[in-house]
Amino acid sequence: MAISTYAVTGMTCGHCVSSVTEEVGKLAGVQHVEVDLVAGGESTVKVSSAEDLPVDEIRWAVDEAGYELIGSR
Amino acid sequence: MAISTYAVTGMTCGHCVSSVTEEVGKLAGVQHVEVDLVAGGESTVKVSSAEDLPVDEIRWAVDEAGYELIGSR
Repeated sequence: MAISTYAVTGMTCGHCVSSVTEEVGKLAGVQHVEVDLVAGGESTVKVSSAEDLPVDEIRWAVDEAGYELIGSR
Repeated sequence: MAISTYAVTGMTCGHCVSSVTEEVGKLAGVQHVEVDLVAGGESTVKVSSAEDLPVDEIRWAVDEAGYELIGSR
C-alpha cells in the first residue's frame, strides 16, 4: 500500500473537503482520502492507494474539484 | 411580489452559496434567491416571493443549510 500527502490551496469549508474527497476518491486504485482543512491556506490531502499513483492523476482530480495541488508534503 | 434581503454569516465559498440558495429556494412561495457572498463576513441573501415570508422561515432554511441569519438588511 502507498500513502502520499499533498498540499492543496483554495479550500475554505466542509463542502470543499467533500468535493476534493469525492474527486480524488474516484481515481482508480484509491482506497482512502483524508483532508486536513486549513481554510484559506494550504490544506493537506492524504491519499492511500494499492499502488503508487502518479501525482498528475491527483492533480487532475483536485483541479476537477476546483482547487489547486501545489506540491507534495 | 415581495423582495427581502437578509444578512447571513458563516458562508465561505460557492458551495455555501449553493446550499443556502437550495434550502431557501425550497420554501413555499419563494420565487428567486440571490446570494452576494462575503467570505468570512456578512453575506447578503435576497429573496423574492409571491407574498411576504415570515423571517423565521428564512432563518430556518438558512440554519438547515448550516449558516446563521443575523438580521434583515
